Amino acid sequence: MAALSAILGGSGLLTAAPDRLPYEQAARYAGGTTWAVARPSTVEELSATVAYAVRNGVRVVPQSGNTGLVSGSNPDPTGEELVLSLDRMRAPLAIDEVDRTVRAMAGTRLSELNTALAEYGLWMPIDLGSDPMVGGMVSTNTGGARFIRYGGMRQRVLALTVVLADEQGTVVELGTGLRKDNSRLDLRQLFVGSCGALGVVAGATLEAARLPAQSCTVLLVPTRPEDCDALLTWAERRFGDFVSAFEGMSQAAMRAALDHVPGLRNPFAGGEVPPYAILLELASTVPYESFPLDVLVENDLAALFEADKPLLQDALFGDGPSLWRMRHSMSEGIRAKGSVAGFDLSFPRGGLFAFRKDAQRLLDEQFPGAALHDFGHIGDGGVHFSIVLPNDGARMYEPLEQAITELAVVGHGASFSGEHGIGRKNQALYDRYTPNAVQALSGRVVDAFATHRFGAARFGLDPGAESCKAPGN
Amino acid sequence: MAALSAILGGSGLLTAAPDRLPYEQAARYAGGTTWAVARPSTVEELSATVAYAVRNGVRVVPQSGNTGLVSGSNPDPTGEELVLSLDRMRAPLAIDEVDRTVRAMAGTRLSELNTALAEYGLWMPIDLGSDPMVGGMVSTNTGGARFIRYGGMRQRVLALTVVLADEQGTVVELGTGLRKDNSRLDLRQLFVGSCGALGVVAGATLEAARLPAQSCTVLLVPTRPEDCDALLTWAERRFGDFVSAFEGMSQAAMRAALDHVPGLRNPFAGGEVPPYAILLELASTVPYESFPLDVLVENDLAALFEADKPLLQDALFGDGPSLWRMRHSMSEGIRAKGSVAGFDLSFPRGGLFAFRKDAQRLLDEQFPGAALHDFGHIGDGGVHFSIVLPNDGARMYEPLEQAITELAVVGHGASFSGEHGIGRKNQALYDRYTPNAVQALSGRVVDAFATHRFGAARFGLDPGAESCKAPGN
Repeated sequence: MAALSAILGGSGLLTAAPDRLPYEQAARYAGGTTWAVARPSTVEELSATVAYAVRNGVRVVPQSGNTGLVSGSNPDPTGEELVLSLDRMRAPLAIDEVDRTVRAMAGTRLSELNTALAEYGLWMPIDLGSDPMVGGMVSTNTGGARFIRYGGMRQRVLALTVVLADEQGTVVELGTGLRKDNSRLDLRQLFVGSCGALGVVAGATLEAARLPAQSCTVLLVPTRPEDCDALLTWAERRFGDFVSAFEGMSQAAMRAALDHVPGLRNPFAGGEVPPYAILLELASTVPYESFPLDVLVENDLAALFEADKPLLQDALFGDGPSLWRMRHSMSEGIRAKGSVAGFDLSFPRGGLFAFRKDAQRLLDEQFPGAALHDFGHIGDGGVHFSIVLPNDGARMYEPLEQAITELAVVGHGASFSGEHGIGRKNQALYDRYTPNAVQALSGRVVDAFATHRFGAARFGLDPGAESCKAPGN
Repeated sequence: MAALSAILGGSGLLTAAPDRLPYEQAARYAGGTTWAVARPSTVEELSATVAYAVRNGVRVVPQSGNTGLVSGSNPDPTGEELVLSLDRMRAPLAIDEVDRTVRAMAGTRLSELNTALAEYGLWMPIDLGSDPMVGGMVSTNTGGARFIRYGGMRQRVLALTVVLADEQGTVVELGTGLRKDNSRLDLRQLFVGSCGALGVVAGATLEAARLPAQSCTVLLVPTRPEDCDALLTWAERRFGDFVSAFEGMSQAAMRAALDHVPGLRNPFAGGEVPPYAILLELASTVPYESFPLDVLVENDLAALFEADKPLLQDALFGDGPSLWRMRHSMSEGIRAKGSVAGFDLSFPRGGLFAFRKDAQRLLDEQFPGAALHDFGHIGDGGVHFSIVLPNDGARMYEPLEQAITELAVVGHGASFSGEHGIGRKNQALYDRYTPNAVQALSGRVVDAFATHRFGAARFGLDPGAESCKAPGN
């Protein structure tokens, strides 16, 4: 403790219970406890803290904005883990407009990036319900609702400064910040989404995007939910340059938001919420005066309604911010309805709706009273497959989680963690569904970086784990 | 030999000199010699060939389309290396229009992908002067002229089937083919651009793009070459959604093409080739009738000419295919002028023109008669920095190569291999300019994949190499 205090100075080490509390709590699911929170403010302090921990066999969980949903950034319940917070890793942002890049330390919030970038007509096009920090965004490869147009953090990271989990707390620069550089192995990409297991992100050079000058939001009501696939192909074929969100919303998810979150406006005529709807957003750097996106879409929609077997029942040009408010309120609305089993699934595009039917049948047959409330980024195959349990359904939780995950991963080729990464919440799923050959290889790669196990995720092959059930491996 | 023959069958092993020759020769620079060419046609044969080579200590150089420019796919001159050709690794393509993906074996040519995808209104938006195969495109992270819009192979690879360079010839599936999957370490991205050192690519699932319905090509003549930076910002700010190429062309490179390649048309009024020009291409999935791109650009250009200090001298709406023919003929035209020292450099956007001035000064002072003929993908910081040597300039080659590379990498933060990867041609530059910490880490990562050294590239730390000269490392 004295050694850590010497490295970090007065405000750099928190040991009093009330000070530790916000770092122990999790955004969702149970948090844990820690004996101290180390808060380095420079790369040197971060390196010295890591070196101290490795040399003394201290278990460490790196923490950034602490907005993750898989218990990847909180200490476990033992109280033995040191929280290594990046929230003081801050420095003025370096923005280069011609290069369209920003250099940021790990403790910078997404909202801060966007405020600073807006002055140059730029933004970091990662859209999600929380306000994470750069370090965690890199470590978990944050995606979100505009992935279909802009990709996630993996597509944004041009260079990383990282501290490896070894006795020296080795500082390495991964990537050169150049868009085109084929002069080395791309260790930078390996670090993106590594959930802290390879070391700690100190700072990053990120590629920004041009801010759109106009956007247009339409609520599409498909004839049948599975017509969403054909509507996605239609949208990309007609105006693929502009599609910046293609979000699916089930009736149950929309009703949950409208019923339980104050201040939302029901966008549907007569208040009748349809079985399924798509929030389609188009955006462009070209100003409205030169080329109105809503006119383009309106002209194209006419043909869709006139088809022999129309894919669409209805299309409503809505107030974008109001529609997004409904979309972003779904998680809150659903949790207000009761206990929720939440799944962060990802499918090949075109694979979701067959799974959805099978899952509904599974619920009907084996989990009576459990109610599907799904929504999400279906334009890139993702879905937040939320299931509200009946009042007396606590005992359902585990078997339902197993059955749905098994159906998705083994039956339909899904990922059990499309966006959220790996943490204590879903480590068992990693152990179960990742092919043994991949786990073994991943473990050797982790060993190439780290001499000490950092973070909550374990990518190596656990000799005791049940062997892989994924098909074809 | 008999063992290999048993694995590969009659047409799978070439040993006669005339049969070996096309695999020994290189697209540029010296080729080498081999004792045999192994041509597996299935994943099983590929695995067995790799296992045989590793168990018997056979040195192997994997080869795909053999179109690379850094001697990465040819055998060395010793005659001891086995060429492992992927040209028989073929199977019908599996195209999924809703998913916008294609599954291809490693021996599929880019042109074959594009022919098949076009039937679905899709394409693989990698544009370059040659026609490589999928295996090599993955291994070298092929980029090209439309990178600014579509990225390179790194942005296209959703899953890989690879064979590791170990005694079992272990077959592993890296990545799941999903767009969003944060359930594991991203070993797939590590393989992209690894130049064969981690193992051999057997097949890939790639994300295709929607084919544009219209494109518009403009030749911009900047007032000064360095005004290209402001023109790039202008283009992205005004119509960033559509910019699909932003190519820089020096007067010398344009003249070389026009003078030495038959059938090209001089696009400039009066035939006067300006000091520098930009080939700007815009493309959109929206049809011309709905929104003519040329009208958009023309309206915006007017304001540029009217500025107090105009960035532009001239703008010519040209015939796209004809302009691209001139652009793609530069390499041939320049080689027709004499011996060429070629550099595949990449800078931060905004960094090229300061380097260009310094390099011209260096040539004037130290290499009289050496003539700069630069051109390339300046919209993403890349440049083919070609220098034609004077007739008696053979002795210049090595000192000039060293001086230019040193100025670029150490003086201006460039990569010495923006596009081409690492091969025998530039291994010494890797050893010299890659920070020791990165080389050491990379060597450990290679060891995690491979028990045997495959391919021409060496990413580990060479204990005998001169230590790193890159700044700040």
